[in-house]
Amino acid sequence: MAPISTRDLAGEHGDNNSCNRLDHKQMSKSVTTPAVIARPSKDHDLVLKTFRLLIADLCQQFKGGHPGGAIGMAAIGVALWKYVMVYSPTESTFFNRDRFVLSNGHTCLFQYAFLHLTGYPSMTLEQLKSYHSKRSDALCPGHPEIEHEGIEVTTGPLGQGVANSVGLAIASKHLAATYNQPSHQVVSNHIWCMVGDACLQEGVALEAISLAGHLRLDNLTIIYDNNQVTCDGTVDLTNTEDVNAKMRACGWDVYTVEDGCFDIEGIVTVLNQARSAATKPTFVNVHTVIGLGSAVAGNAKAHGVAFGESDVANMKREAGFNPDEYFVISDAVYDFFSDRISNGRRVVDEWHNLLESYEHQYPDLANEFAKRREGQLPADWESLIPEDFPNKATATRASSGLVFNPIAQKVKSFMVGTADLTPSVNMTWEGKDDFQFPGLKTDCGINGSYKGRYVHYGVREHAMAAVSNGMAAYSPGTIVPVTSTFFMFYLYAAPAVRMGALQRLQVIHAATHDSIGMGEDGPTHQPLELAALYRAMPNLLYIRPGDSEETAGAWTAAVKAKHTPSIISTSRHAVPQITGKTNRKAVERGAYVIEESLSEGGKADLTLIGVGAELSLAVDAAAILRQDHSLRVRVVSFPCQRLFDKQSRDYRRSTLRRHQGIPAIAIEPYVALGWERYADAMVCMSTDRFGHSLPGPQAYEYFGFDLNTVVQKILEYMERRHRGLVLAGDFEELL
Amino acid sequence: MAPISTRDLAGEHGDNNSCNRLDHKQMSKSVTTPAVIARPSKDHDLVLKTFRLLIADLCQQFKGGHPGGAIGMAAIGVALWKYVMVYSPTESTFFNRDRFVLSNGHTCLFQYAFLHLTGYPSMTLEQLKSYHSKRSDALCPGHPEIEHEGIEVTTGPLGQGVANSVGLAIASKHLAATYNQPSHQVVSNHIWCMVGDACLQEGVALEAISLAGHLRLDNLTIIYDNNQVTCDGTVDLTNTEDVNAKMRACGWDVYTVEDGCFDIEGIVTVLNQARSAATKPTFVNVHTVIGLGSAVAGNAKAHGVAFGESDVANMKREAGFNPDEYFVISDAVYDFFSDRISNGRRVVDEWHNLLESYEHQYPDLANEFAKRREGQLPADWESLIPEDFPNKATATRASSGLVFNPIAQKVKSFMVGTADLTPSVNMTWEGKDDFQFPGLKTDCGINGSYKGRYVHYGVREHAMAAVSNGMAAYSPGTIVPVTSTFFMFYLYAAPAVRMGALQRLQVIHAATHDSIGMGEDGPTHQPLELAALYRAMPNLLYIRPGDSEETAGAWTAAVKAKHTPSIISTSRHAVPQITGKTNRKAVERGAYVIEESLSEGGKADLTLIGVGAELSLAVDAAAILRQDHSLRVRVVSFPCQRLFDKQSRDYRRSTLRRHQGIPAIAIEPYVALGWERYADAMVCMSTDRFGHSLPGPQAYEYFGFDLNTVVQKILEYMERRHRGLVLAGDFEELL
Repeated sequence: MAPISTRDLAGEHGDNNSCNRLDHKQMSKSVTTPAVIARPSKDHDLVLKTFRLLIADLCQQFKGGHPGGAIGMAAIGVALWKYVMVYSPTESTFFNRDRFVLSNGHTCLFQYAFLHLTGYPSMTLEQLKSYHSKRSDALCPGHPEIEHEGIEVTTGPLGQGVANSVGLAIASKHLAATYNQPSHQVVSNHIWCMVGDACLQEGVALEAISLAGHLRLDNLTIIYDNNQVTCDGTVDLTNTEDVNAKMRACGWDVYTVEDGCFDIEGIVTVLNQARSAATKPTFVNVHTVIGLGSAVAGNAKAHGVAFGESDVANMKREAGFNPDEYFVISDAVYDFFSDRISNGRRVVDEWHNLLESYEHQYPDLANEFAKRREGQLPADWESLIPEDFPNKATATRASSGLVFNPIAQKVKSFMVGTADLTPSVNMTWEGKDDFQFPGLKTDCGINGSYKGRYVHYGVREHAMAAVSNGMAAYSPGTIVPVTSTFFMFYLYAAPAVRMGALQRLQVIHAATHDSIGMGEDGPTHQPLELAALYRAMPNLLYIRPGDSEETAGAWTAAVKAKHTPSIISTSRHAVPQITGKTNRKAVERGAYVIEESLSEGGKADLTLIGVGAELSLAVDAAAILRQDHSLRVRVVSFPCQRLFDKQSRDYRRSTLRRHQGIPAIAIEPYVALGWERYADAMVCMSTDRFGHSLPGPQAYEYFGFDLNTVVQKILEYMERRHRGLVLAGDFEELL
Repeated sequence: MAPISTRDLAGEHGDNNSCNRLDHKQMSKSVTTPAVIARPSKDHDLVLKTFRLLIADLCQQFKGGHPGGAIGMAAIGVALWKYVMVYSPTESTFFNRDRFVLSNGHTCLFQYAFLHLTGYPSMTLEQLKSYHSKRSDALCPGHPEIEHEGIEVTTGPLGQGVANSVGLAIASKHLAATYNQPSHQVVSNHIWCMVGDACLQEGVALEAISLAGHLRLDNLTIIYDNNQVTCDGTVDLTNTEDVNAKMRACGWDVYTVEDGCFDIEGIVTVLNQARSAATKPTFVNVHTVIGLGSAVAGNAKAHGVAFGESDVANMKREAGFNPDEYFVISDAVYDFFSDRISNGRRVVDEWHNLLESYEHQYPDLANEFAKRREGQLPADWESLIPEDFPNKATATRASSGLVFNPIAQKVKSFMVGTADLTPSVNMTWEGKDDFQFPGLKTDCGINGSYKGRYVHYGVREHAMAAVSNGMAAYSPGTIVPVTSTFFMFYLYAAPAVRMGALQRLQVIHAATHDSIGMGEDGPTHQPLELAALYRAMPNLLYIRPGDSEETAGAWTAAVKAKHTPSIISTSRHAVPQITGKTNRKAVERGAYVIEESLSEGGKADLTLIGVGAELSLAVDAAAILRQDHSLRVRVVSFPCQRLFDKQSRDYRRSTLRRHQGIPAIAIEPYVALGWERYADAMVCMSTDRFGHSLPGPQAYEYFGFDLNTVVQKILEYMERRHRGLVLAGDFEELL
């Protein structure tokens, strides 16, 4: 396990920024003839030319798209898809395949074209030509999308692909540590992540790079398409760091390929060395030329617009192609890649043979591994949740632990992590092991291994969520990642939470400290408006349970949502159990009546909507309004808007009964936005200001969320209604 | 201008992680006696002890808070507030003061205690003791807040303080380059940023560090409280990178102080060298011990809980203090800091003398500088906006340029930047200069200087917004930062946009490509739910103008909002001018009637609400509904919910007229959340899925936002109403 020596030929001081990237022919090869390349380089020449002209044509046809990057990366693609990556075009979801992530997703044609050339059935030439077309069933969207054959994750917003690939590498390491046996390496794949100059500027990538270096994920390789050009011009407008030195400082092995446009052999050699790396992830800095061969080669103009007809024609002439022919892929080029299908089938067969032998020798483990691959949880997982909870005021973050820890302990599918808030989020379980580089012994005495299922993500919320997406995407259902931090910090993580929702990946986010009740940390930590984002986000469940029983319901809903991420949003402070009224099963309906004023259908004066940490406030206010003010008050508990919206109209009407003219008043110390659908008025926070640093109870009082003030606000509102001052269309914020 | 040689005594390979941080006495001093320290070290000993016990008492009194970090940083604080920083306690907003940013804001007692000891009038001992108390007027919230004396920026969410300090350093460099004259350095301050282990893990900090290195901000020093402990335990649980090497790779000078708990002289020497740095920002890696002296010193338990009575008593005994006395600050300690007020007054006087001479010698420049400091724009700024626009379909992002570029060109207060989307966002102006290190000549031929007002932030959206907050906070109104990128990417920037709103800082965010009309880039770039976040965010204006005229109104509202950030959200694609109907002045009311069906107050059948890029769709649908279906249709343009909410109830009712029973239908290709306050139904996007990669017009059609489908949906809804199928409380998504 000796570390591979780095072979960075670029030197120590960032000369990658000073070399002349346009004059690629002057560049020396940094790595020489590898053994694995049998074909003569004249094939390479034709393949590279064909590929580059194909990209130019594909952008030119509808006069749009991103040609430059894909063209510059051609040789990298040949190295990957012809010589290096393990995959099977005809069995694209083969479990032990290498995973490829295109973090610079705007260069999607790069990936699509290689999927076509290597024979992925769905990626026909016709489909390839659908790029930027009006076809709504196209497989070639502007950024790769996970639902299409051969695509591992959806990328787009830059930088996240890096973190996704770290997640894929963690998943692979973890499954290998869990299921591999001597002579049965049933999980042995490698993760390849392609990045551009931009990805390496994004914070989420920098967080993930630091984490991957720490975890020593030697099954991960980042390939840097170093063309030193972004939209605005050359990268030295904004970034002059020594990227190789930075990567080494983060614990990565670094290689440089000087002639990344043509030196396929050199790239292959380095990538093969990266695959065999034994202690560190590998960063391969490949110098390329954006839009090579075009009139705008090496220029920002090559990035995001088609080259124009005459330029494309010139490119073809220069390459010895006919300028009047389009999308030309000769048989020789198809031939060049034609072994990929048979090779892929062989690889798959070998793996199935290995698996058969493994099943024979380790039947129990093999059975468990098979169920994991199918995304199955143990049939009895729900029974692991306690039926009852201690009958005392309990913070819902503590309830979260009571509900989920028994599941996490028993069900290996769950990998749980935190952005450095282990003592606060209650997501650990007895006997939990850390996911760490085997042999690491920390200063605080913790050991770990890749078998461990608890991930210390560090104070890297965005990476935590994006890494989790990668873990979930590895083979959906095999690993169900759980993240955790304060709810407010899920704003840092939001771009990745969104991408999880967009990709229909099951990731559960345990968000604590979700209300002004979190107290002294003050306005910067008090999430007044964040729930609006997550209540609006498609394909996401934002659930605020009101007590332990509802917390059980929240986790149940989240675990059952196989294609939907969830945020379970809990309180820092203890809240009363609403025993006998709250109901875990009802949580799955989003909202439900916990107190009727009279018999079903009878007349009531108003409905109070209680939510999450403040549910008991609604219950208590209702009691006073009934007792002291003779109002007939109903109470609805409303943990999840999205789940409620999915119910029938009848259920929704009968729960809220606004159609009978009964006004509904919501109570939640967030801004009102979004509650107008369900309520006529709301005891809420103002949009003029943020929160205030005070102990929880005083914070509630300061903002008028103490019981007396709430009751008073409701009475005043009811009085205004009585006097006819509230008209149709008036929604009132009761501040 | 020769670069300062780095004096990192920690060596090349991250030994900062291996040294024994608890046994500080074994540590050698890395920097020896500086000239500037006159006092004998016995004062230091008393001051350090007093400070540490004071922090322990302040946390113990209410049994909460964050004692450990502040205690560990005591010597750094003495170095800063006694020997290094330029400030005046009695004139805390003195323009040329050094700026201090506590990025690890949970250690706020560190700052509060030094504000007290150095004599900031409002920070009395009584106030200091308000930390974690029930006092709602306390000056000691759980994280520092900008509105209190001596606090430069509000920090809290980790990492952002680093980016804020980069913004402060940019502001200082820029103002110095703009206003300083030979022998009149009217701007000459230094920026000091304190960070903990966590800040250096956050992506936003890593982005900002890379940018600061590129810009060679030698007026910026990061002081790293390297105690190698975070909430979860020792930092090596999650981060084992070589931070010094990483910082050097990013273009920073690096110094290490081994004995950061006691070596005040060493710290002072290094910080003074940092101040005199001439080509690079400086990173000072100070090894400290969290919770020094307590039973949990060097342990994660010292981070976020009070030590307990007996431990605090023991600490006092150990230090020779009486365990039964609390908050003890002897006269000797006050004496030690007593020169700070007079020193500060002297510094302020000197600067005013300098300014007087400057005013005499450069009256015009001085006049302009004075107006800038007062936050004044030229009186005629609004007249720089064109009165008319070309009468042709225009993308509102282009309109944004037409409106704002003449202002940006003439009004020096605006510093404009982009996250690498210069060609797309239209925020440049004729003759614009880049803000760059003087002498930098990029590969793409661009020169720049610190006088330039256009910042290439790189693909670092989060840092862009957080840096801008720093620029705005430098002296509010002096610089008005403008950021720009695609609207979707403001999700990356959201945590910093929020902090700008929380701090009441005027930053204008020019967000383009704001609808599914942005097209081919696909669902990852199509912002369906992001507007909900920004419409919910307190103290923020999210404005979607519908044509050039409304874009003029949007910018006017944003520029006038001196204490509120704005997002001006514009289209990629051309939209028709609604000439003669839209009105820039009316934009400031948030929503207004652009077409009445009949005379004011007459009966109408419905109101269509049009928004932003799809405003013309509402106008066109109304025309068809009137002409072909004899419906009496009103049209309301609704660029900004927040501005509308601020109008009188009468104005709001008369604009929407829902109180007269006229139903309102909103049209916007976002999810509906939030529109329920203003509309009864909405042609909107589903919450079941995200967008789709298609050319803009096809994307509209695919999601039913073409004219015919919209009309059809409205007719069906009206028919359902007519048949009594829509009841009170029913909000309908017309999907």
